Amino acid sequence: MLGNFKYSNPTKLYFGDDAMSYLPEALSGFGEKVMLTYGGGSIKRNGIYDDVIRILRECGKTVVEDAGIMSNPTVDKLYEGCRIARENDVDLILAVGGGSTIDYAKAVSVSAWCEGDPWEKYFLHMEEPSNRIIPVGSILTMAGTGSEMNGGSVITNHETKLKIGHVFGDNVMPKFSILNPRFTFSVPKYQMVAGIYDIFNHISEQYFSGEDDNVSDYISEALMKSVVRNSRIAIDDPEDYEARSNIMWAASWALNTFVGMGKSQDWEVHMIGQAIGAYTDATHGMTLSAVSLPYYSRILPFAIPKFKRFAIEVFGVDTTGKNDEDIAREGLCAMESWMKEIGVVMSARNIGVTEDMIEGIADATFLLDGGYKKLTRKDVAEILRESLNA
Amino acid sequence: MLGNFKYSNPTKLYFGDDAMSYLPEALSGFGEKVMLTYGGGSIKRNGIYDDVIRILRECGKTVVEDAGIMSNPTVDKLYEGCRIARENDVDLILAVGGGSTIDYAKAVSVSAWCEGDPWEKYFLHMEEPSNRIIPVGSILTMAGTGSEMNGGSVITNHETKLKIGHVFGDNVMPKFSILNPRFTFSVPKYQMVAGIYDIFNHISEQYFSGEDDNVSDYISEALMKSVVRNSRIAIDDPEDYEARSNIMWAASWALNTFVGMGKSQDWEVHMIGQAIGAYTDATHGMTLSAVSLPYYSRILPFAIPKFKRFAIEVFGVDTTGKNDEDIAREGLCAMESWMKEIGVVMSARNIGVTEDMIEGIADATFLLDGGYKKLTRKDVAEILRESLNA
Repeated sequence: MLGNFKYSNPTKLYFGDDAMSYLPEALSGFGEKVMLTYGGGSIKRNGIYDDVIRILRECGKTVVEDAGIMSNPTVDKLYEGCRIARENDVDLILAVGGGSTIDYAKAVSVSAWCEGDPWEKYFLHMEEPSNRIIPVGSILTMAGTGSEMNGGSVITNHETKLKIGHVFGDNVMPKFSILNPRFTFSVPKYQMVAGIYDIFNHISEQYFSGEDDNVSDYISEALMKSVVRNSRIAIDDPEDYEARSNIMWAASWALNTFVGMGKSQDWEVHMIGQAIGAYTDATHGMTLSAVSLPYYSRILPFAIPKFKRFAIEVFGVDTTGKNDEDIAREGLCAMESWMKEIGVVMSARNIGVTEDMIEGIADATFLLDGGYKKLTRKDVAEILRESLNA
Repeated sequence: MLGNFKYSNPTKLYFGDDAMSYLPEALSGFGEKVMLTYGGGSIKRNGIYDDVIRILRECGKTVVEDAGIMSNPTVDKLYEGCRIARENDVDLILAVGGGSTIDYAKAVSVSAWCEGDPWEKYFLHMEEPSNRIIPVGSILTMAGTGSEMNGGSVITNHETKLKIGHVFGDNVMPKFSILNPRFTFSVPKYQMVAGIYDIFNHISEQYFSGEDDNVSDYISEALMKSVVRNSRIAIDDPEDYEARSNIMWAASWALNTFVGMGKSQDWEVHMIGQAIGAYTDATHGMTLSAVSLPYYSRILPFAIPKFKRFAIEVFGVDTTGKNDEDIAREGLCAMESWMKEIGVVMSARNIGVTEDMIEGIADATFLLDGGYKKLTRKDVAEILRESLNA
């Protein structure tokens, strides 16, 4: 049954290979001072940086730069960004990059004018923003997190070894996002594949929860099928515009609150993955792929009907002569084959996890209630050990 | 391939059996004068009218009423509504009802302050609004048109026998909509079924166009499957909350621009259906069901792969030992069986079309380019004759 909910998503999207030409229109509603946030040098190498700067100047904007956003944005970087935003009293934060850069921009957006420590208030205690929020716009260069159309923001504190995501409301969602699938062509294969698995897992985290048969379940299957299909094409030819555009569009809808509306959700894979990230600084999507199979195999016995449905609807498993559990397990086998085919990380060993980290990561993992079986700390340690030995 | 597009949907939704309790929150951003539009007496009989009036008063609003919105809102009624809105200088139009009432509210919203004739400007010539637009909110009592989350508005001119829909942009979409599935329990079966077929057809109009394999195709199949499944449950038990809530949620997403983004679309069934509506004043969904089979049978030979896909994905047609065209045709047979099962009108005869109307309806039908085969005027007449003899 669909539970009660509020839905609102005010992000305006400009999608396509001409999307950048709408940047002036997108900027028109905002003040003159723009803080440009971006990561390393990739947007300078591929020309996006020059285009953005030119357009900002033509639109009469004053630009303040905040570069060097790392793939797992840190608390220290957040404090620095807040200082820049505050000292320059910026009117808009324009994030140019992937999910990390946009997540970071949203963190600065709520934190810059926060009284007290934003890490404590907005991440440790998950409070709702009560202070002034600086509007954010984004120019997306990598498909995966869905940050371009949601209120999510993940920040890492290396000192306390915590990586925490806060999903803020529609007042923190980007006001606009520019989505040009061509901008994703030059993403390195490792990052592309990590992004693809991140998309898939966003959907499965919302799908593998609850006993209902809602519109959401059908939509989730549709998104997963489309991601699997287009990932195969994109692996063969990263410049296949059709595949990259469909992956980009699916990414936004996998995590813009739509498919999760009115239903329970899991998110335990993300909890373990984020704890790994806090310890190893590994690429987010690969922390998810490394623990997914041990996790889903462990919870499967508690939700055979849903895993059977997944097997049939997403991976087209043939049911002839098989019992429900066999069909369900074959679905996970098909998922495993697909994961190996596109080349995601299947063992935590390959993203820097070592035996001596296991207890610490298990301690840093939040244990949630929404999945088919609530894990214990011991379960998490066993999942990590299985992944390490995979 | 996904074509270039802009996407934006600012409608805030309150969904669930407690949705009405959010009306004060929804109203808070608007001025004091509210124009309440509604149809006949049903909202007075089921108590919704009293609840709304009470809440409006508690929120300190002044209420101006505009009742009697007919199922196919007319130009004459539109002129009357414009006069009421203008004379009272209303700050918000609150539509309580189904798609007709909300369509009408949007028409008044753009037309009240229009210089010149709004029928000519906004419907005959499909111009974009340049005048002041009065914001619209809605309280939905019937699932079908998706009007609660889109910019669409259909107005009928009985004098010229034209029924024209204009899909306005996000500036005309409702600012908020209150969706309580329980409000749809008391809708008469004929109207419920017409609404369900309207939802299904909104999706198929977007689905049966183009040769691509986009996220949209998978999402459309997901929505159609969910509508078919839940329609069967709702026919057996109209008070099954799960089924009615899923139908209501699917209706909003079937026509809020999402599934059609970046792809070509057909809409010819709606063009014929609307022409029938202008002649007979029949229930919208039934005008679509009456011509769907003759239409889709006629265009099937030009898109066998898509109709085959539809057969397999939406209706689970078994492909063993069949050629592509057989599979494709079996999909339409399965659709026909489902339509008969839920009890939609299969012959134009049963919604008041007579032989002598055929040429007139064919003349009043807009011939569009987006489908798999552009119809001629003669095709339309033949489809109508087939439907008449079905």
